[in-house]
Amino acid sequence: MIALNKHPSGRHFLQIPGPSPVPDRILRAISLPTIDHRGPEFANLGTKVIAGMQQIFQTRHPVVVYPASGTGAWEAALANVASPGDAVLMYETGHFATLWNKMALRLSLKPEFLALEGIDDATGLPRSWRHGVQAELVEQRLRQDGSHRIKAVCVVHNETSTGVTSDIASVRRAIDAAGHPALLMVDTISGLASADFRHDEWGIDVSVSGSQKGLMLPPGISFNALSPKAIAASKTATLPKAFWAWDEIVEMNRTGYWPYTPNTNLLYGLSEALDMLLEQGLPQVFARHQRWAGGVRAAVRAWGLPTQCADDRVHSPVLTGVVTPKGVDADALRRLIHDRFDLSLGAGLGKLKGRMFRIGHLGDCNDLTLMGALAGVEMGLKLAGVPMAGSGVEAAMAHFASEPQASSQPQGHASR
Amino acid sequence: MIALNKHPSGRHFLQIPGPSPVPDRILRAISLPTIDHRGPEFANLGTKVIAGMQQIFQTRHPVVVYPASGTGAWEAALANVASPGDAVLMYETGHFATLWNKMALRLSLKPEFLALEGIDDATGLPRSWRHGVQAELVEQRLRQDGSHRIKAVCVVHNETSTGVTSDIASVRRAIDAAGHPALLMVDTISGLASADFRHDEWGIDVSVSGSQKGLMLPPGISFNALSPKAIAASKTATLPKAFWAWDEIVEMNRTGYWPYTPNTNLLYGLSEALDMLLEQGLPQVFARHQRWAGGVRAAVRAWGLPTQCADDRVHSPVLTGVVTPKGVDADALRRLIHDRFDLSLGAGLGKLKGRMFRIGHLGDCNDLTLMGALAGVEMGLKLAGVPMAGSGVEAAMAHFASEPQASSQPQGHASR
Amino acid sequence: MIALNKHPSGRHFLQIPGPSPVPDRILRAISLPTIDHRGPEFANLGTKVIAGMQQIFQTRHPVVVYPASGTGAWEAALANVASPGDAVLMYETGHFATLWNKMALRLSLKPEFLALEGIDDATGLPRSWRHGVQAELVEQRLRQDGSHRIKAVCVVHNETSTGVTSDIASVRRAIDAAGHPALLMVDTISGLASADFRHDEWGIDVSVSGSQKGLMLPPGISFNALSPKAIAASKTATLPKAFWAWDEIVEMNRTGYWPYTPNTNLLYGLSEALDMLLEQGLPQVFARHQRWAGGVRAAVRAWGLPTQCADDRVHSPVLTGVVTPKGVDADALRRLIHDRFDLSLGAGLGKLKGRMFRIGHLGDCNDLTLMGALAGVEMGLKLAGVPMAGSGVEAAMAHFASEPQASSQPQGHASR
Amino acid sequence: MIALNKHPSGRHFLQIPGPSPVPDRILRAISLPTIDHRGPEFANLGTKVIAGMQQIFQTRHPVVVYPASGTGAWEAALANVASPGDAVLMYETGHFATLWNKMALRLSLKPEFLALEGIDDATGLPRSWRHGVQAELVEQRLRQDGSHRIKAVCVVHNETSTGVTSDIASVRRAIDAAGHPALLMVDTISGLASADFRHDEWGIDVSVSGSQKGLMLPPGISFNALSPKAIAASKTATLPKAFWAWDEIVEMNRTGYWPYTPNTNLLYGLSEALDMLLEQGLPQVFARHQRWAGGVRAAVRAWGLPTQCADDRVHSPVLTGVVTPKGVDADALRRLIHDRFDLSLGAGLGKLKGRMFRIGHLGDCNDLTLMGALAGVEMGLKLAGVPMAGSGVEAAMAHFASEPQASSQPQGHASR
Repeated sequence: MIALNKHPSGRHFLQIPGPSPVPDRILRAISLPTIDHRGPEFANLGTKVIAGMQQIFQTRHPVVVYPASGTGAWEAALANVASPGDAVLMYETGHFATLWNKMALRLSLKPEFLALEGIDDATGLPRSWRHGVQAELVEQRLRQDGSHRIKAVCVVHNETSTGVTSDIASVRRAIDAAGHPALLMVDTISGLASADFRHDEWGIDVSVSGSQKGLMLPPGISFNALSPKAIAASKTATLPKAFWAWDEIVEMNRTGYWPYTPNTNLLYGLSEALDMLLEQGLPQVFARHQRWAGGVRAAVRAWGLPTQCADDRVHSPVLTGVVTPKGVDADALRRLIHDRFDLSLGAGLGKLKGRMFRIGHLGDCNDLTLMGALAGVEMGLKLAGVPMAGSGVEAAMAHFASEPQASSQPQGHASR
Repeated sequence: MIALNKHPSGRHFLQIPGPSPVPDRILRAISLPTIDHRGPEFANLGTKVIAGMQQIFQTRHPVVVYPASGTGAWEAALANVASPGDAVLMYETGHFATLWNKMALRLSLKPEFLALEGIDDATGLPRSWRHGVQAELVEQRLRQDGSHRIKAVCVVHNETSTGVTSDIASVRRAIDAAGHPALLMVDTISGLASADFRHDEWGIDVSVSGSQKGLMLPPGISFNALSPKAIAASKTATLPKAFWAWDEIVEMNRTGYWPYTPNTNLLYGLSEALDMLLEQGLPQVFARHQRWAGGVRAAVRAWGLPTQCADDRVHSPVLTGVVTPKGVDADALRRLIHDRFDLSLGAGLGKLKGRMFRIGHLGDCNDLTLMGALAGVEMGLKLAGVPMAGSGVEAAMAHFASEPQASSQPQGHASR
Repeated sequence: MIALNKHPSGRHFLQIPGPSPVPDRILRAISLPTIDHRGPEFANLGTKVIAGMQQIFQTRHPVVVYPASGTGAWEAALANVASPGDAVLMYETGHFATLWNKMALRLSLKPEFLALEGIDDATGLPRSWRHGVQAELVEQRLRQDGSHRIKAVCVVHNETSTGVTSDIASVRRAIDAAGHPALLMVDTISGLASADFRHDEWGIDVSVSGSQKGLMLPPGISFNALSPKAIAASKTATLPKAFWAWDEIVEMNRTGYWPYTPNTNLLYGLSEALDMLLEQGLPQVFARHQRWAGGVRAAVRAWGLPTQCADDRVHSPVLTGVVTPKGVDADALRRLIHDRFDLSLGAGLGKLKGRMFRIGHLGDCNDLTLMGALAGVEMGLKLAGVPMAGSGVEAAMAHFASEPQASSQPQGHASR
Repeated sequence: MIALNKHPSGRHFLQIPGPSPVPDRILRAISLPTIDHRGPEFANLGTKVIAGMQQIFQTRHPVVVYPASGTGAWEAALANVASPGDAVLMYETGHFATLWNKMALRLSLKPEFLALEGIDDATGLPRSWRHGVQAELVEQRLRQDGSHRIKAVCVVHNETSTGVTSDIASVRRAIDAAGHPALLMVDTISGLASADFRHDEWGIDVSVSGSQKGLMLPPGISFNALSPKAIAASKTATLPKAFWAWDEIVEMNRTGYWPYTPNTNLLYGLSEALDMLLEQGLPQVFARHQRWAGGVRAAVRAWGLPTQCADDRVHSPVLTGVVTPKGVDADALRRLIHDRFDLSLGAGLGKLKGRMFRIGHLGDCNDLTLMGALAGVEMGLKLAGVPMAGSGVEAAMAHFASEPQASSQPQGHASR
């Protein structure tokens, strides 16, 4: 086999904001023998995971499951509802919003990229990458579009590159306030199953997600959750589509099958993940991530470092971006921490390259994995000579010791 | 967990022509913890699997690995080299050739679908679905295309719906003989790593394949092998493409990384599969499949049933299609065999629905798994009241007992 | 890793009478992380497996679970109830009865070894190794023991070396008819969970078993099921004992714990095995093995070879011994079959060395694995030049096709 | 399946002094299909693990591998060399020495139990449980035994109940200085493969060990390493023995087989563990444990709590015992920590019950798992209202950040 870890002993601390640590139950499930995706047993699996994903997305409408990683589901969302040259309004929350914008360009759409203008004084970083979607900017722009040229508003729910979780319901309200017919399309690749997400209640037309974040699976599966309005739009949209086309998949999914070969073994894992999440209850899952995020932010504040998110109302429960002082190369710091302490942290991406790092707090974690990770960061900061105001580890312990778990339901396999 | 088998005991016999039985080594490998696809360990994995896949495709040129199942790689092949409205010449070898043809239509291309005309007298089945690609028909058609409107010739190497393995080198010779500049694009989804396949030597421009056949992996990874001519074509082709676009992937693959999240855990399995196949040697792998195919055909002949392939020069080493007598519903037969003997067989697809079934002889098989499968078919035929000329099981035993394995190299993990 | 199979492809056919093929569910279960055997979760596991094993032994009395392979449980049975120099009456059903007898000698007991005298004319093999325990010989011997010097009668339920399953209830009746107080001790290492076994109803005092046969686990766990009379005897017996001593284990087991470190990961497998067996129901499990045995015997008879068991009333449902013609080295035959067809068969042991081989039909099997195995034997017999009266494979197919499964309950993980 | 963890998310922190956390590589290895322990592949496995264990014990003499947990290997050591009524000199280092002493009594030996007299003033705990073996006491006692009635001196290398690692070479020197022929028998169940151990160089006659500590395996395998003098003694010793008898096992082990069924799947794990340990090198393994122990002791000192070990020369590299202040119930503290932070700590055993807890630092650990564990302890101490002098977590970070890893060789599967 290939070497997966150059460290001499112990389990790697995978504290990036996805792929997240995969629970042992799920890893075992995906190693079961592959079955015939046209056989009778498969229908049970297919039916179960689709129904389960509807609960996760909080929707009564179809959820399309792709045997492809998350970037594919971005393309699927655009390719099913848009026609060449269509205008779409996108919002620059960070690197992933930027990549989705670039993809729209490659697919021959005409994306317009809204942003909060300006540079943040304290950090020298773009303001728009430190705040959530400003719904009033969306509303303002849509009001200008009297001819309804804009076909869709595309926003990122949980911006994985920054640690900002935007208020999606406010975007829906903005569209409605503008009286605009644009579809609302939301990337919740890193938000779903970690942060609260309500496809139907928030009036979303297409939600995009992936397996390797809150669902605690390896990468390789991605999702589109649809609305009736999105389905209607897909019937007239003319971008060429085949692999991503909703129509055949939704049709065959009614019986638990797929028009082409699905990702059988990862679906075993999805089935197991759904058991775990739904046994525990989504409110408990969301509370757990909020609690973790609180502990990590307490540490960052104690160090005296700014979080990338500058608005306390929209801190992500999934990850925390940490801005390093000017002159400190965040990538060199991450490398030092990886090499010394077997801990992976997320890099600063795009406009943030070298200026920040990201701590993931999602997937198969608990208080002590986070304490281990924070200790690794604190030792790394010290070794790198970064001045710290105080001990983040102490602050996080104070947080975790004072605030009990919201839930103590069993994680394990249900006994009979 | 979800129920994967309704039978009370024993391992399922998965004798469909893919997904193929996955070796235990590979199932264990894909259950290892997910790593950071941007971290230092990942580059070793990425570099290794790309280099290994070049050996498997027998090419010195780039191989693109997609985190998506095989149908996606069909789309990738077309989307990278074609522009809206382009003519492509496809050849009807069976159901999968037909599906690729439909996809070309959905992608706004203008496919032309060549076929061997007529109905086979003995079976009432379409002649074109019982023979390989007729290279002279291709040559003839290309000679008529003096203006070189046809951008690509698309053929299926191993037609999974019929059990016919076409002579790809003859198609290349036909294109050259016609002096035509069309690209040669080949679907070897079910041929690669089971039947001999030579991307460079046969002059192929784009080869398309998937993980769940000869590579013995679960579904979820697919491939494009490229030629310099195909890469050149991709630079001017105008079909919208993003997820499937070769340019960014090939560029980032140089360092062992991907532009978006790859299918990490299935790549562990690919790494293991490459170790297994290359340790043993491709000639040994191909000989093993030929030997298995010989045993299965001996059984079918002894039963007195026609094979779907009517040309002895192009029997597939990967699967054997078996035509049932008129009036025998092959799907009812398959269901009976599944329910009684825990054996999955492939269905007759498209124009062959209900008229034939398919026996896969690929993946993690050996003589005795095939003997078990043939016994299951023979018992099923008897229970269904299908008249048999003789015992297929006896004939297959005679074959396997007389012809020793070409190789007895270790399968297991290399000891040090 | 070490090489586990020198064959180039496919799964090994492990058709020895134990270790039996282990279901995939169980292999995954034993690979879960080890927990603290003194922690709160462990008590659930311990309590569950002990209660489940009582159902399997069909007893209301304590079952002792040892973290040791089956030979240890033989020693435990003797060491707990006997004192140095005690007489025990054992019965020579074959090689394992002989080994148990030798162990009694090593432990300073005075075993007497009853046997059916004489050599079988047709095969030249000892008669006692072709028949079950003759209860009248036991009764006769016990009647002679007026002073009740004999402390225990030790018999093997399913003699793994021959394929004879003795009538244990008749031995209890013989002891009672003789009015003798001896304990009845039974080795059902290879019988339990495959052949019907009733610890309480049959009046057994100590039952001995192991994990790697009908329980479908890897080797490493073994069992003593006790009676109140055996427990009473253990309080005065004076053979030195510590690891095997029942008292501390039975005491601690009440709370689900062990006095020393148990075999945690194999206990995960035992928990899973119990789920599988009890979901399906013991009567269905026993019927399945009887049906398999019928198919294998049909094959042996068609070949014209004698089964080792010469009494039709006591054929084992677990394995079938096949006597090779004089002059045919059964071990050379087994080696040929292993090397050519990746099939392991059991050897002739002790007095049967080289004269017979054994086909296991237990564990994670089904009709087609047995058909594959029988085809391997038949091809091997042919290659070795052994004359056969007819086709065993045909006979077995006739058996399996005519007799449907007794049960079609789900094997798989229970869906919710 | 049975519930293995009642916590809602994350991996359990198993920081008890064994069973130790098992590496993922090993868990996957033990889940491979069981093979025939009489077949040709098995000999490679058997031969490899025995040779590897000789390297681990640092001996050229036979190592006996038992399919039984560690307590069995204690019994094996005594049963092979002693006769009923033999005197053995044992030394009370703690709870496990006491249990071994009790076992000797149960096996009808006459053990004499040496100890350092008195109660420690500061803690009120027995002095002998806070110090290593005092070789001068052994020498003194042996000098009194002019008639050489004492057959063996039995000592514990790494006392798992206290965290004291005795100087075994000094015991050998004491025996030699007294001119006494007693065998030296050493329990290194929790020492081997974590602390330096030299069977031959230190003149040990029987070393006893188990799988679930430094070897990083689940429990279920145990070992005796022998000397020629021990083998000679076993030929005349008269304690009844069968399962534990060295003679047959050593004889059959020459070819890689066992006289009875070995623990096949755990042997797969042992093979993998040997690869990992020997790839890295024993000196590196020992240094790693010393480094970890240093970090944990730094934390305990910062808290102002006494370590159970009162002699700085013999602190264990494997575990650290922490004495709680009088009035603090260490078991209640452990329960609180388990329930709140999903961390298992070792209990105070025997004379230490409720007065101390133990932190394991062995197995598949690294700096950050230990930091997570220490944070869990520190939060638990705070929640329990235990006064602390300072922050142990800070002290441990200072230790780990200042002292780099001795080794950075790859842990992973060797790439080719």
